[in-house]
Amino acid sequence: MRSRGRLALPQILTLGFLSIILIGTILLSLPFSSAAGHATSYINAFFTATSATCVTGMTVVNTALHWSLFGKIVILILVEIGGLGFMSFAVLLFVFMRRKMDLTTQLLTQQSLNLQSFANTRSIVMLVIELSLSIQLLGTGLIFIDFYPRYGFVKGLGYSIFHSISAFCNAGFDLFNNSLVRFQNDPYLLFVLTCLIISGSLGFLVWKDLLLYRKDHYLSLHTKLALTTYLGLIIISFIVFLITEGNFSNESHLTVFQRLMNTYFMSVTPRTAGFYSYPMTKVSMGGMFFTMILMLIGGTPGSTAGGLKTTTVGILLIRVWATLRGKRDATFWGRRFSDDNVQRSLTLVFLVAVVLSIATLILTITETIPKHFGIEYILFDVVSAFGTTGLTLGLTPHLTIIGKLIFAVLMFMGRVGVFTVMYSLLTSKRPEDAFRYPEENIMIG
Amino acid sequence: MRSRGRLALPQILTLGFLSIILIGTILLSLPFSSAAGHATSYINAFFTATSATCVTGMTVVNTALHWSLFGKIVILILVEIGGLGFMSFAVLLFVFMRRKMDLTTQLLTQQSLNLQSFANTRSIVMLVIELSLSIQLLGTGLIFIDFYPRYGFVKGLGYSIFHSISAFCNAGFDLFNNSLVRFQNDPYLLFVLTCLIISGSLGFLVWKDLLLYRKDHYLSLHTKLALTTYLGLIIISFIVFLITEGNFSNESHLTVFQRLMNTYFMSVTPRTAGFYSYPMTKVSMGGMFFTMILMLIGGTPGSTAGGLKTTTVGILLIRVWATLRGKRDATFWGRRFSDDNVQRSLTLVFLVAVVLSIATLILTITETIPKHFGIEYILFDVVSAFGTTGLTLGLTPHLTIIGKLIFAVLMFMGRVGVFTVMYSLLTSKRPEDAFRYPEENIMIG
Ligand SMILES: [K+]
Ligand SMILES: [K+]
Repeated sequence: MRSRGRLALPQILTLGFLSIILIGTILLSLPFSSAAGHATSYINAFFTATSATCVTGMTVVNTALHWSLFGKIVILILVEIGGLGFMSFAVLLFVFMRRKMDLTTQLLTQQSLNLQSFANTRSIVMLVIELSLSIQLLGTGLIFIDFYPRYGFVKGLGYSIFHSISAFCNAGFDLFNNSLVRFQNDPYLLFVLTCLIISGSLGFLVWKDLLLYRKDHYLSLHTKLALTTYLGLIIISFIVFLITEGNFSNESHLTVFQRLMNTYFMSVTPRTAGFYSYPMTKVSMGGMFFTMILMLIGGTPGSTAGGLKTTTVGILLIRVWATLRGKRDATFWGRRFSDDNVQRSLTLVFLVAVVLSIATLILTITETIPKHFGIEYILFDVVSAFGTTGLTLGLTPHLTIIGKLIFAVLMFMGRVGVFTVMYSLLTSKRPEDAFRYPEENIMIG
Repeated sequence: MRSRGRLALPQILTLGFLSIILIGTILLSLPFSSAAGHATSYINAFFTATSATCVTGMTVVNTALHWSLFGKIVILILVEIGGLGFMSFAVLLFVFMRRKMDLTTQLLTQQSLNLQSFANTRSIVMLVIELSLSIQLLGTGLIFIDFYPRYGFVKGLGYSIFHSISAFCNAGFDLFNNSLVRFQNDPYLLFVLTCLIISGSLGFLVWKDLLLYRKDHYLSLHTKLALTTYLGLIIISFIVFLITEGNFSNESHLTVFQRLMNTYFMSVTPRTAGFYSYPMTKVSMGGMFFTMILMLIGGTPGSTAGGLKTTTVGILLIRVWATLRGKRDATFWGRRFSDDNVQRSLTLVFLVAVVLSIATLILTITETIPKHFGIEYILFDVVSAFGTTGLTLGLTPHLTIIGKLIFAVLMFMGRVGVFTVMYSLLTSKRPEDAFRYPEENIMIG
């Protein structure tokens, strides 16, 4: 019984996400879901459902034009399920059904949210869900102030709901043809969206700590590291993009403040949101390369973000720095990282490197690269899929069927898989044979 | 006394290599070293000396045309010093001076060659050096059989010596305009060169084990892992290049066997040798990307190779596989890898990723990318410098001064630095404060 529950842990999450994607695929392939009333091909419905559930925002058909209102609502629901996480929804269902959670579910939720004690699992999950919905509601209101004069009441409200959810869940879906390029000169909207994006990508655990801080006066090491890395990355990104893009000095129709706002928007969005106010194809090579690094890093674990996660990168930078300084322990704010944490982070980075390399290699054979592009045409979109960012240099809409399948796997791994892999890591502590092979050192590097 | 010796370990190696590069720079900048009798600019002399000492083979001036006979001999000596390693030379000097090695030197040599016991350090180093020189002599003879009819006795012999040393030391310097492209239809020469390349890139430790095998009937875990990874990589590379390049089916002037030989040559050379028989600019995008991966992996530690090293990649693949299978230990051939080994390998990979990303980002700003190239124009050469491979897509000869300096640092780190970093890792075990911060877990991935 006990080992069944343990073994099932990663499978439950994986199968859960897969079922949602499959239900989404079926719904989106119905003629009713497309604006034209035709059935959408299974592969395109599958790609869109995966992209929505994995909050990536990559599209092979135009979201605004291809889908009917019903189709758009299906996408939104998939985004919300993917964004808040499969587990929170399971808990929510249990709460509504007024059934006590069985122990397996409680353990699963607790581990997925990294909670310290059994007692308040349910109430904290409820708190986080309430907070998420409140922020999305507030976001809708703030966006509506901007959209009402532009689009009128009904369309304005619909658009506000859609983009508030899409921003908070870091999904990156938009109902305009080219993301937010038309709002380059609208610092208010860009600022509201970055607030939503940041709120959504901090993760449940950070929110829990922040919400309980007034009562407990305690921040976990996780929260401290996540917030520090997050803030550090935004500042570094802002400086790098100021240098590589020269603060968009050739966009003469924008004021200096508006340009700064676009640089700021560019510093926040690539890590997982996937919105853009400046077309990626016009970004410099340096900016494009740095965007790739940001997409690879991603957001905070336990959030809607994909990628390696800020805590992974933070812990490794601290570990490498400690190693280079000849120190035994990697420490941060008076706490020491466990060897397990460090080794799991490092294994994750290597594993991701192997997976992305193999995907890229296959895609160089199956896909066609236009004359004026290099390897970045494939590499950028591969990293974007894994980071569940959804930015593209142009490859995604032209993917072959093999390409679409590989991208679906990458999005899935970015959102669920790495998590699942980490679960296998965490649960590998079952009793093993007492016999171990003798240890022997080899030469490294 | 003891801590002084320990602290000096990485510095001795670093300063040793640096002094050799500086002496080489001064010699190469003399008017006497250039064919035209003009002084070579310090930056170009420095770049060439670094490239030779770090056995990379990257050039900013044409080796055959720019340098005089004296200049070419200076380059060869730098290659031989860099190739056999600074430490072996130090031992060699001691042997010639008939002085007993002091304990620090003995420890240093022993650690750098990963020997198990004090007793036979000197004799084993001598054995390895004798073997190296014998192989290079044999290689010269085998190449001369091919070059004598082509170039006559004097030029043929000179060319044979130069290319035998360059191949065995995996330096990649050549005296032709475009590496070995003119020998595409000469399977004999290509085969001899791959034999030299492989012999040179196995590393001292593997050679020691192989040489003593008839007596000891023992292969260390290091040797087993290095040989397995090496063989595996050649087979995988051969298959991948057969697919991506279609066995050069459009090179109608070559027989099928000659084409297979070129594919084989392409599978052996990118990992650190840097010779090519087929121009990199004509290779497909997939082949180019896979070549980058091979350059990044590099050869065996303790050899003339740069890059991450085969054992690092081997140990990590085994560790990741064990992790995914839920196993506690990473084992190979009945031996268990130590946690230290695994963590150092992982740290190395992450550190290298950070260094190469920063270098690439700076170069996207300082260098100019031609219209029909993408990010690979910079990324490929960056990886090539770090892997001390020396292949180029065309950037290296056009580097700016900042670019040349960054590349010199990358070559140096590829050949010496990672090694040095690992030394700092190995020697971090000095007594530390008894006080350690309390441990706390964070959420990963
Ligand atoms: K996204
Ligand atoms: K080389």
